[in-house]
Amino acid sequence: MNICNTKNTIMNISIAIHGGAGTILASKMTNELEANYRKGLQDALNIGYDILKQGGSSLDAVEASVKSMEDFPLFNAGKGSVFNNKGAHEMDASIMYGKTLEAGAVSSVSNIKNPIVLAKTIMQKSEHVFLCKEGAEEFAKLNGIEFENDAYFYNDTRYQQWQEIKDSDTFQLDHTDNKHDKKFGTVGAVALDKEGNLSAATSTGGMTNKKFGRVGDTPMIGAGTYANNNTCAVSCTGHGELFIRSVVAYDISCLMEYKGMSLSEACKFVVHDKLIKIGGEGGIIAIDKNANICLDFNSEGMYRASVDKDGKEFIAIYKN
Amino acid sequence: MNICNTKNTIMNISIAIHGGAGTILASKMTNELEANYRKGLQDALNIGYDILKQGGSSLDAVEASVKSMEDFPLFNAGKGSVFNNKGAHEMDASIMYGKTLEAGAVSSVSNIKNPIVLAKTIMQKSEHVFLCKEGAEEFAKLNGIEFENDAYFYNDTRYQQWQEIKDSDTFQLDHTDNKHDKKFGTVGAVALDKEGNLSAATSTGGMTNKKFGRVGDTPMIGAGTYANNNTCAVSCTGHGELFIRSVVAYDISCLMEYKGMSLSEACKFVVHDKLIKIGGEGGIIAIDKNANICLDFNSEGMYRASVDKDGKEFIAIYKN
Repeated sequence: MNICNTKNTIMNISIAIHGGAGTILASKMTNELEANYRKGLQDALNIGYDILKQGGSSLDAVEASVKSMEDFPLFNAGKGSVFNNKGAHEMDASIMYGKTLEAGAVSSVSNIKNPIVLAKTIMQKSEHVFLCKEGAEEFAKLNGIEFENDAYFYNDTRYQQWQEIKDSDTFQLDHTDNKHDKKFGTVGAVALDKEGNLSAATSTGGMTNKKFGRVGDTPMIGAGTYANNNTCAVSCTGHGELFIRSVVAYDISCLMEYKGMSLSEACKFVVHDKLIKIGGEGGIIAIDKNANICLDFNSEGMYRASVDKDGKEFIAIYKN
Repeated sequence: MNICNTKNTIMNISIAIHGGAGTILASKMTNELEANYRKGLQDALNIGYDILKQGGSSLDAVEASVKSMEDFPLFNAGKGSVFNNKGAHEMDASIMYGKTLEAGAVSSVSNIKNPIVLAKTIMQKSEHVFLCKEGAEEFAKLNGIEFENDAYFYNDTRYQQWQEIKDSDTFQLDHTDNKHDKKFGTVGAVALDKEGNLSAATSTGGMTNKKFGRVGDTPMIGAGTYANNNTCAVSCTGHGELFIRSVVAYDISCLMEYKGMSLSEACKFVVHDKLIKIGGEGGIIAIDKNANICLDFNSEGMYRASVDKDGKEFIAIYKN
């Protein structure tokens, strides 16, 4: 990345991504699986960062990074989405552009290859922000969004995870061998482009065996996703119900705008104080208008990666 | 109301409700219709205020007031819900309790007599905050929520409004004879009880001829509804897309908590400055922890009513 260093410093671009937070322990990971996760993060990071380096918009960069993770089967979004209690895949996504405060969100859609592309299309081509279920799929068809059949979303591991709990009242936040583990399967990206525009994007396949048309924080503007050029761009991953009640993403923005906190102060306060107090486990990725990056979580681990304004790359999974 | 004055002052209880904002002009209203609207407001105000006077919780009060407006056919919520582009009624609602920050929300449900009751039941009896469509209806059935058939929701006026535009790409925010008029059909309530607990509730039948499973700000915690004992309770009515992008309800709370604004300063800034700048028409009702009330809107009118901490009642429709 050194070749780009000087240019990047001038351009002041940066990007951060996540592939979910939760009980992610090195002791339970094989070398091969860890290498796979790192590859998924690396690929998603590269595709978004390349767009920024070439002078592209943060909106295109976060879309591309999230799309890459939606196509990567280990992350719970797009192709890797978990099974709900009907044996189906219902996905949510949202995107926001900090320059205009425009936003697009979609919930509970099936057979959409890349929900984040649909969310961006809703933002750009509809008069609405939030579309759901069959209506959103109808809009997707009319707008040339790519569909995939059920076989595309089928995955033996995910299916077994569902089979193990499908006759119970249990639901799981993500894939895990231990039912007491919590993994919050969501992917997200935040970026700052050379024009100084911030964007955020988030996508999820929800919870294994989820019932009753449950929707989490991922498609909620202000909760799971928020971007504003005056403050920051934020994408969340965690126990969605608590993130909705805490309006996490917009809270970080407000703490900066109204209370004068720095990005890291605001993220620390929300993730390690406010969320902890109401039992909200998970994490956030955020970038401010000066290209500062924050990757913060109160769980055991978070799949995360970033490239800062000096072109320095960072990829990590566990706490330390 | 004088009998209660002394007691109320000690109890410091208050309530405010709205039945939607928009292009509501005295010149286009008959005396009879205006009297009907006032009756709808009066009934909803009484039922919620009576609960507070008897020492009941703000949560029960806002639920009861909104339920009353859902049952009143002139308001676009519950029984009075408009037709979507499929000729169906799809309703959204949410509720939040400021003491615990617990919340419940439901979107795109049909045949539920009182969506606000379902939202409260989701908050109290599920592990989730937000349920949608068939899944939410399934949860409703399992929890004894009252259903009504399509005939209950049928209304000649609403049907004609839909017929006039159903073959066009137009959608309308509410009932109106003039397609250039805008009315934001939503109902809501906010209240403070004698224990000092704040609650907010909002419910809507959406937009006439709405397509693609569009969801507005009503079921979005932080956008259409928010309550926090440290600051205020807020219920919104307006152009939902702009209210989502502005995270209106939580913004008012943050301006108070982080910037030290009073309730009226925060409401004025959001409704008459921030929303105006992005073209967001509509209004809000809010109560703070000291029982101050704010009923503010940037449209021509807003169906609104309140009882303040001195027991003083207020009902109004137009700007002046």
